[in-house]
Amino acid sequence: MGSHHSDRRQFLTESAALASLAAVGAVQSVSAQTPQADARLKDPLAYGQPSRFDNTVRKSLGNATPINDTALTTPLQDLDGIITPSGLHFLMDHINGIPEIDPKEHRLLVHGMVDRPLTFTMDEIKRFPSVSKVYFLECNANSRPLRGPNGDSVQLVHGRTSCSEWTGVLLSVLLKECGVQRDAQWIIAEGNEANKYTMSIPLVKSMDDILVAYAQNGEPVRPQNGYPLRLVVPGWEAIRSVKWLSRIAVVDTPAMSWHEAGNNADTRPDGKALGFRFELGPKSIITRPSGGQRLPGRGFYEITGLAWTGAGLVTKVEVSVDGGKTYKDAQLQEPVHRFAHTRFRFAWEWNGDEVVLQSRCTDEKGEVQPTIAEAAKILGVTPDYFLQADHFNGIQPWRINRDGSIQNALF
Amino acid sequence: MGSHHSDRRQFLTESAALASLAAVGAVQSVSAQTPQADARLKDPLAYGQPSRFDNTVRKSLGNATPINDTALTTPLQDLDGIITPSGLHFLMDHINGIPEIDPKEHRLLVHGMVDRPLTFTMDEIKRFPSVSKVYFLECNANSRPLRGPNGDSVQLVHGRTSCSEWTGVLLSVLLKECGVQRDAQWIIAEGNEANKYTMSIPLVKSMDDILVAYAQNGEPVRPQNGYPLRLVVPGWEAIRSVKWLSRIAVVDTPAMSWHEAGNNADTRPDGKALGFRFELGPKSIITRPSGGQRLPGRGFYEITGLAWTGAGLVTKVEVSVDGGKTYKDAQLQEPVHRFAHTRFRFAWEWNGDEVVLQSRCTDEKGEVQPTIAEAAKILGVTPDYFLQADHFNGIQPWRINRDGSIQNALF
Repeated sequence: MGSHHSDRRQFLTESAALASLAAVGAVQSVSAQTPQADARLKDPLAYGQPSRFDNTVRKSLGNATPINDTALTTPLQDLDGIITPSGLHFLMDHINGIPEIDPKEHRLLVHGMVDRPLTFTMDEIKRFPSVSKVYFLECNANSRPLRGPNGDSVQLVHGRTSCSEWTGVLLSVLLKECGVQRDAQWIIAEGNEANKYTMSIPLVKSMDDILVAYAQNGEPVRPQNGYPLRLVVPGWEAIRSVKWLSRIAVVDTPAMSWHEAGNNADTRPDGKALGFRFELGPKSIITRPSGGQRLPGRGFYEITGLAWTGAGLVTKVEVSVDGGKTYKDAQLQEPVHRFAHTRFRFAWEWNGDEVVLQSRCTDEKGEVQPTIAEAAKILGVTPDYFLQADHFNGIQPWRINRDGSIQNALF
Repeated sequence: MGSHHSDRRQFLTESAALASLAAVGAVQSVSAQTPQADARLKDPLAYGQPSRFDNTVRKSLGNATPINDTALTTPLQDLDGIITPSGLHFLMDHINGIPEIDPKEHRLLVHGMVDRPLTFTMDEIKRFPSVSKVYFLECNANSRPLRGPNGDSVQLVHGRTSCSEWTGVLLSVLLKECGVQRDAQWIIAEGNEANKYTMSIPLVKSMDDILVAYAQNGEPVRPQNGYPLRLVVPGWEAIRSVKWLSRIAVVDTPAMSWHEAGNNADTRPDGKALGFRFELGPKSIITRPSGGQRLPGRGFYEITGLAWTGAGLVTKVEVSVDGGKTYKDAQLQEPVHRFAHTRFRFAWEWNGDEVVLQSRCTDEKGEVQPTIAEAAKILGVTPDYFLQADHFNGIQPWRINRDGSIQNALF
């Protein structure tokens, strides 16, 4: 800790004009119009919509009807490439609803152990140098439960991960503007929804690659995804990518907020719990063919799916068509982005026999996605443990039956 | 011509299973539901929408009120990164409205000078090996008129270009399935709207990198963008990326369709016209700050914009803050994709004086974006020619006035 102090001095020297930015104001958009409170959906000429024949939609966990907003999943089996359309991004942990924030009124306060506490308007934030990156987000509870009411669907089991091109300012730039003090070790980020969701993040990561994002897939971040401002913490559990970001306190100790101290600190069989989990492990899933689909007959199929890792770069994805006995390399969609979903493709011919398909991800740290048996062995538990546990990044096999039907082959 | 014959034999040998694909059927989606004819907009939980405070929207050329669908422009000044949200993709040339096509009923017929004419269902097309690429599309009429009712706005002048992650099957794969005959030289692609829009494309390009695309930015292509199937012809004028694609005739001579023989064959001052124009030249535009915006005062600004070229890769973008006297390299957003919008960024401090900003693109062929004077000299015309001409890829300067207002500095 401490290298950020010299970084800060260097930044201020190089970009002196930025220091007086709050006083100067920011770029005004002449075309900005007064929002119409009653116009929830825009004219389809002004903003186009999907086909009425297209049922690529989010679903509630458990497939509740009517759909409710407790947990909305991305339809991975219906998507192609690596970009998740913003309207299909998964949605979790908005316990008191989606706030309707007027960006003109929104402020980000950075305070605590800093030389100069500062409040930024949206225009001021957008005036800083910006960065665009393709990053995935994955909920720490993704893939739970592995079996049960969510059954065999890749969407309902694994659909709490999505991938976008995010644009924003590096959090480190804003922290340097404020001047982080010597003994600071953490930040506490807070969102402006009713329950003031808070999350603790180590300062080292905050001075590295975290984005304060205002745009997603080109356009302003949508309300369900944090409009007008959210943290994007690459490679870490999405629970820390605080939405509706309004306050950052620089501190010397974590907050032990509700999500950290209780809700997400799984107690293991040995009675211990990990309160802070950050980096996600290497993971992959075959999205087609996958549970609930049906192959119409023998012949050629392209197996496809997604891989990702909190380590950064996915370096290899292998596919097995014999339940894990043998693997062959899949083709990765280029370019592969660090901390992004990586699309893989694998040519396969089905001979009509029962077969088990699965994929395995390897990342730049050399970490290999485990089988459920390997993951259980590491924790000293039986595989059933993962039926209800968070943080599962193990291999998910799909069984193709002789009639072409497909189901979860884990349990 | 002719190398594709051996390619075809090789493909059939390697992927024999594909040849019988039409007989076998294709992957069925068990979750497919009957569309609800009255549900034009989905539940916002099933499919999220932008904020009601966000006015990032398309506008009609000339800024017609109410908005109409003759030509809809992408709000480049409000976008970040390189992805254009599908709902903001520009929209042109749908002379008889947007067809509402049921993908279950949709067919693609490939016939003409082929050994085996074939009709493909959507499921059959999706079963072939797929490719995802980030490609821009630009209308040949983009940037016309350079001045007039569209005035000084980057959206209304230059907003007929957009960039998406497209997924589909290489057209060459489908053509090889049908067996292209020796004397074939062109394809004629036809869309399934009321006026049966047709376009001629040389076979060489068709056997190279053209996509038959069914997905855009992860999800199915939207109706305004060609649902359920469109050609995407990388680097060429978007007029050839036929939407609602339903028929491909393999032929030995082009069709000389309405768009080729008349509408888009500009007659030059010398009385000659180019009926077929394909590859777009290197082009760039500063999107912020840009016409119609206002700088609130002196100080630091990040100049940003987009560059693209029909040649493939943008290799350099330079920015001038003195009306073209001197240029410095801008930073390019990595990774740079071939045939895609390339985001550039350039740190700048405004001292409050009147100044002219402009950008210049260089591509992998070494082609450099011309000034309007250079472009006019090439054609033997005066710069006024471009006030109403198509195919303008010249440099667009923006003048920053002392009061911070910004306007087109070309005329």
